[in-house]
Amino acid sequence: MPDDRARRRRGGGRAGAAARRGQAAISQRPWGPARITDRPVEPLGEEGVAAIHDGAMRILEEIGIEFLNDEALELFRKAGCKTTERTVRMDRNWVMEMVGRAPAQFTITPRNPDRAITLGDGHILFGNVSSPPNYWDLSLGRKVPGTRAQCADLLKLTQYFNCINFAGGYPVEAQDIHASVRHLDILFDKLTLCDKVVHAYSLGPERVDDVMEMVRLAAGLSEEAFAAEPRMYTNINSTSPLKHDYPMIDGCLRMIRKGQAVMVTPFTLAGAMAPVTLAGAVTLSIAEALSAIALFQYVAPGCPCIIGTFTSNVDMRSGAPAFGTPEYMRATQMTGQMARFYGLPMRASGSCAANVPDAQAAWETSNALWSAVQSGASVVYHAAGWLEGGLIASPEKFVIDCEIIEYIGRYFDAGLTAAGPDEIAVDAIAEVGAHGHFFGTPHTQERYETAFHSPFLSDWRNFEAWEADGAIWTAERAHGVFQNILREFEAPPMDAACREALADFVDRRKAEGGASTDF
Amino acid sequence: MPDDRARRRRGGGRAGAAARRGQAAISQRPWGPARITDRPVEPLGEEGVAAIHDGAMRILEEIGIEFLNDEALELFRKAGCKTTERTVRMDRNWVMEMVGRAPAQFTITPRNPDRAITLGDGHILFGNVSSPPNYWDLSLGRKVPGTRAQCADLLKLTQYFNCINFAGGYPVEAQDIHASVRHLDILFDKLTLCDKVVHAYSLGPERVDDVMEMVRLAAGLSEEAFAAEPRMYTNINSTSPLKHDYPMIDGCLRMIRKGQAVMVTPFTLAGAMAPVTLAGAVTLSIAEALSAIALFQYVAPGCPCIIGTFTSNVDMRSGAPAFGTPEYMRATQMTGQMARFYGLPMRASGSCAANVPDAQAAWETSNALWSAVQSGASVVYHAAGWLEGGLIASPEKFVIDCEIIEYIGRYFDAGLTAAGPDEIAVDAIAEVGAHGHFFGTPHTQERYETAFHSPFLSDWRNFEAWEADGAIWTAERAHGVFQNILREFEAPPMDAACREALADFVDRRKAEGGASTDF
Repeated sequence: MPDDRARRRRGGGRAGAAARRGQAAISQRPWGPARITDRPVEPLGEEGVAAIHDGAMRILEEIGIEFLNDEALELFRKAGCKTTERTVRMDRNWVMEMVGRAPAQFTITPRNPDRAITLGDGHILFGNVSSPPNYWDLSLGRKVPGTRAQCADLLKLTQYFNCINFAGGYPVEAQDIHASVRHLDILFDKLTLCDKVVHAYSLGPERVDDVMEMVRLAAGLSEEAFAAEPRMYTNINSTSPLKHDYPMIDGCLRMIRKGQAVMVTPFTLAGAMAPVTLAGAVTLSIAEALSAIALFQYVAPGCPCIIGTFTSNVDMRSGAPAFGTPEYMRATQMTGQMARFYGLPMRASGSCAANVPDAQAAWETSNALWSAVQSGASVVYHAAGWLEGGLIASPEKFVIDCEIIEYIGRYFDAGLTAAGPDEIAVDAIAEVGAHGHFFGTPHTQERYETAFHSPFLSDWRNFEAWEADGAIWTAERAHGVFQNILREFEAPPMDAACREALADFVDRRKAEGGASTDF
Repeated sequence: MPDDRARRRRGGGRAGAAARRGQAAISQRPWGPARITDRPVEPLGEEGVAAIHDGAMRILEEIGIEFLNDEALELFRKAGCKTTERTVRMDRNWVMEMVGRAPAQFTITPRNPDRAITLGDGHILFGNVSSPPNYWDLSLGRKVPGTRAQCADLLKLTQYFNCINFAGGYPVEAQDIHASVRHLDILFDKLTLCDKVVHAYSLGPERVDDVMEMVRLAAGLSEEAFAAEPRMYTNINSTSPLKHDYPMIDGCLRMIRKGQAVMVTPFTLAGAMAPVTLAGAVTLSIAEALSAIALFQYVAPGCPCIIGTFTSNVDMRSGAPAFGTPEYMRATQMTGQMARFYGLPMRASGSCAANVPDAQAAWETSNALWSAVQSGASVVYHAAGWLEGGLIASPEKFVIDCEIIEYIGRYFDAGLTAAGPDEIAVDAIAEVGAHGHFFGTPHTQERYETAFHSPFLSDWRNFEAWEADGAIWTAERAHGVFQNILREFEAPPMDAACREALADFVDRRKAEGGASTDF
């Protein structure tokens, strides 16, 4: 669906002009996550928290969770849990004892130690969109299967934006690479284009082991040094309702045995794979997540675990999933209360149902991102670039979302709400009086350069100035910013020996056939 | 700036098709404001609140406020305040005594008593955009001076949407009507097209008196009944820094003497007419607002007053005002803390700097609206339809904003976060087990029709279905909704005698020349 107007204005207005003049594509806030200082929003009372906890414990004790993984079943049996075929029932005291072993806070250190991130210390961390099979951008004007080149472009955005704190899963699936070797090529791209924390998909033993090895090689670490502290993470989804499948659990076991972090994120759509009531969907999600976390803590006491939430609603007429709705916000906030109850860092998500980066995409994603803030989330997955319920990655959407995330960062600058005598400024008010203007006062002049956040994408000019400059809507400006970032992108420095070791590993594993597939 | 794509698709997709089939333009939530149940966001500590209060009191005691209104100066002198030329200095004890007389809660009852609104009882009320001189819509594709016809269209949206609780100022200035009689024609339109609470501009004694009379006639009230309780309100802005002008104060005095409500809203742009520091801008705003409210409470003890906030920042390079920024959100939240300290209902605003109803418009307005929620605002002005910093009214933006406001309403439905046994639904989870789906269960079937909010504007379909239906972006869908609402709009019932009395009054006042102007 080509957009003539968009193609005409691909240059991107002011940002395009800036790039042509050799200036940086955008001016952005420095690296460094925001610390949430607002009290969390807590829709549940204490009795509500207790009731959801009790519900989750009853699910684990009375109904049980299916583990489609023999090793896990054996471990549960060894731990004294009751297993019936593949269903595991676990005593609440055991679950709580295991969950109590999980650290409330931990750090993940990527190949560039300056990009280390700490989870659970009150900061909120944002990652790129992960795993959409398809790509859309404004110059293309249509939805296409993702490619390695598009994936690399999105990895450049992931690296470029300081507000993106980690590189999650593949920002788009590179469908032009066979699945047996995709993880090798894309991790090579990710580890050379980015120096931020990366992730391994738990999609089979070979892929998990390969990616751990690549992360080790990229950082030039010995095997001992790699395993000594978290360097990366995996994220798994349960197969709701009430199931964990083989590769997800297997991947986590491999990771925790090498000291790496795991994130357990049930995907419970209320009314579909979870009860239609939000409290029910949250309860199911909590039970599924805790069952896996308890197992991991049994295997590797104190291993770094994150509890994830992905509870939303569906359109009850069509079954279409909804994101960024009031239901989604409340479910996230409720899960935040539960995560604090269990002392676990929480993952939430940016998300939307919109198909293009328009007003709907903005209000849905804004609701999702702010509800993560309100929930006290440590990690926000899919925070930039997501469209169509996660089926499309879009660079324009990525740029738009980073504008919103920069707003969140600025929102938590402590100085913004300082109210000492210098800020209240009665003297400056007296000096200006009833007939002056504040711009020229020393009080303003001393502060004006840093007083306010300067966004890189918003256009605050009046209509006439905006119109004279091409009347460019936000999605089209975002496209221009995207092009300018690509133009000026420089990969972060990497030790030549590390890069060579990484390339050699990829070559060798490709020669061996990569990961086995049945196609 | 015509948009070919928009013109091609003016029908508005699904909504257009629905209207052609004779269905209602949209399905919306019923009339009835949301009650804020979240704790307010409080960036200031207790000492911060005390410091801003002290700063505001020092401004009133030491610097003083200019009142360009002789009657007000005389009243202040009578009350024992020090006046030097037009500057009034007032003792903090007197100010606090006067402010303490203001009711924490009151009701305004329009011609349809079912549309009465209560301020200060924990509910949040939303009003249409007020006073933009210009109009933009997608079919027009350019910015034009507002007309009576466009104003009437926007009044129809004001009446149609249940989430719009009151009809604020003119949703666009009808520049095709001479200013001497504009208030007569537009109030006639407003009072016949809407049955919600209306407003009078404090722009000269004749206009205020005319509008009060028209509100009385539209409701068929005796003069005594009209004055017996609030039936309408006015909103005034101070002339920051540190000034109140003649007509604004005059209008309020006329209103309170007839028992009507007043809203005092300083417009303090940090770095321009207020200190560059947010705490300073908020302090100045508080001082200006309290100075007027103290006067009104001196004149009419217990008269209904609302404290307004309109503090934002500017682009320090261009001077362009910013809206929906982190600075804006924090200033609103801080003012909310101060309003609670003084026991006054607060007014906040929806706003944006964006020129068209695109992603920027959505994230800015969403931030503004949610920050009003977080601030515990009673009233949200300009909540729907505002573009270009208030210089443009847009029907598409009106429709988009109502979608967001409906989300806010839904967000506060108490049932949404209920966590009793029926909602936690362990039995339903046991029944479905690990291999079922929740849709067919009795637990779902009993609830699915009302379980989730069905938005009227969002498109949750997948990309292919959305593309097959015309690939319509949100602004264009909103245009379709707007057209459909106009097509099905029916004015609320009005007593024929009241309507005739209103028309006669307009005719008579027009024959008398309306309000005097110097042009």
